[in-house]
Amino acid sequence: MKILDCTLRDGGYYTNWDFKPALVETYFRAMQQLPIEYLEIGYRSRELANYLGQYFYCPEYVLENARRLTDKKLAVILNQKDFPVSDVKEVLVPVKDYLDLVRVAVNPDNFDEALILATELKSHGFKVAFNVMYMSSWSENGAFIKELPRTAGLVDYFYMVDSFGGVFPGDIKQTIKMVRNETDVALGFHGHNNLELGLINTLTAIEEGVEIVDATITGMGRGAGNLKTELLLTALNAKHELDVNFNALTSVVEAFEQLQSQHGWGTNLPYMVSGANSLPQKDVMEWVTRRFYSFNSIIRALQNRKKGSQDN
Amino acid sequence: MKILDCTLRDGGYYTNWDFKPALVETYFRAMQQLPIEYLEIGYRSRELANYLGQYFYCPEYVLENARRLTDKKLAVILNQKDFPVSDVKEVLVPVKDYLDLVRVAVNPDNFDEALILATELKSHGFKVAFNVMYMSSWSENGAFIKELPRTAGLVDYFYMVDSFGGVFPGDIKQTIKMVRNETDVALGFHGHNNLELGLINTLTAIEEGVEIVDATITGMGRGAGNLKTELLLTALNAKHELDVNFNALTSVVEAFEQLQSQHGWGTNLPYMVSGANSLPQKDVMEWVTRRFYSFNSIIRALQNRKKGSQDN
Repeated sequence: MKILDCTLRDGGYYTNWDFKPALVETYFRAMQQLPIEYLEIGYRSRELANYLGQYFYCPEYVLENARRLTDKKLAVILNQKDFPVSDVKEVLVPVKDYLDLVRVAVNPDNFDEALILATELKSHGFKVAFNVMYMSSWSENGAFIKELPRTAGLVDYFYMVDSFGGVFPGDIKQTIKMVRNETDVALGFHGHNNLELGLINTLTAIEEGVEIVDATITGMGRGAGNLKTELLLTALNAKHELDVNFNALTSVVEAFEQLQSQHGWGTNLPYMVSGANSLPQKDVMEWVTRRFYSFNSIIRALQNRKKGSQDN
Repeated sequence: MKILDCTLRDGGYYTNWDFKPALVETYFRAMQQLPIEYLEIGYRSRELANYLGQYFYCPEYVLENARRLTDKKLAVILNQKDFPVSDVKEVLVPVKDYLDLVRVAVNPDNFDEALILATELKSHGFKVAFNVMYMSSWSENGAFIKELPRTAGLVDYFYMVDSFGGVFPGDIKQTIKMVRNETDVALGFHGHNNLELGLINTLTAIEEGVEIVDATITGMGRGAGNLKTELLLTALNAKHELDVNFNALTSVVEAFEQLQSQHGWGTNLPYMVSGANSLPQKDVMEWVTRRFYSFNSIIRALQNRKKGSQDN
């Protein structure tokens, strides 16, 4: 079982993908001493019209700096819908030597296009992961599941992503069974923490044979955030005797807790309601972080959406 | 299935059992509109040498005020080890009309004495719950389990308390089986949130037939705190169509979140380590809240204890 820490990538939703150099250094130095296989440090993208920080583009000097600070495997992620196949050559191939894994965030509706992108990535020799979103809707909206055999030779890790943070341990078991009926690709799990189920869902996934799982320091990540790396490591240390350097772990947790006191990621009542009812958390994050709307009005809006989606 | 909210009682560990009247009023008015059966508002005790607040003693005017603000069932709790049987008459009987439930916190080592106290409580007509501590140690240290048939007619609810916050869903199932072998007393569960397992443990307990479960608003409670009432209600609303007034819920959550920003309850790395290794959280709470020791030195101390307890 492998752990991928994606603090800088997923945490970037709160800092617009910029982090102070001292924090980045603390992060890499700690990770170097922890039982973590991959560090996903950001997105990789062409220049965009809006300003987005260093870890959204991951230019070569950012990758070089990461490589200088750690010899852990490095990963970046792409949004399939924003990443034309033709960009592989221009945007990824020039930095290929830095990248041990390229992850692709995939909407199940675009599974065919994602396979075309994976084909191009493989032709250049990249290791590829698919992070397929909205797993709580796959049982109703899972036409792509029948296409899973086509990942053979193209996709190294097939991640199930609990996008809404509303998945329960029983759902994990069912989804894995559904996927396993079609493919023996190595599985991954990316959990969110809206209902504080990040740990139990991830441990359940590991028990069910998932080979790679994601976490972030202090749970820093979009919306309610992720499984906390420190919680996963502490549980695996106590239950499975995973060797953990708690000095290193403490140093990086304390550094990110300072940032958390500014940005306030983590779950709260609006995220709980959106998670429990499988509603998208993008809007909730905007409403919550702007601090313009009361929780009450956010929850009323969510209750209306829930009603709307039930009526449709 | 019934919910007992013990925010004022368990939250008192952070405020020394005093709460501003406006907060108390917000609390009772919200609870009145939520699907919660019991409100445990504090301890009941003789006067002690140290100063402790209103909700540690629950004098008659506190109980009267609660009764004025809500017609929910009211509960108080006693520490068996500090509560002589002879005090039942002097401390509890005079306020009997206010109390729908008297809970007794019981160390498994004192189970015999607790039964004597229950006998006295029953002779005065009280409804009685036992909150038996340290459930994660019952499989090694559970001599009292064989005595459970003696609770018949004396104990209305037998609570399993996850004192260290280190219990997993599988442990809940095993413990319930162990208890059910001896007695058909109605069961309760009181979970802590060190490992963010409060929700899943409580839902597992409910699935396994537990009849009453505890929670507190924002998880306010000793150490890492409890299952959050708002999380339990949101999950039960989404999964089991429990009717929840989210306006009322939001009002009380927002009020306690202000207090949380002062006191900072909730889990963190030291509580995770103590929970995962079944170490007492009393010391951890002192170390953490005094902010005198670094997390690093707290965790070193905990690792030494863990080593010590393994060596013994």
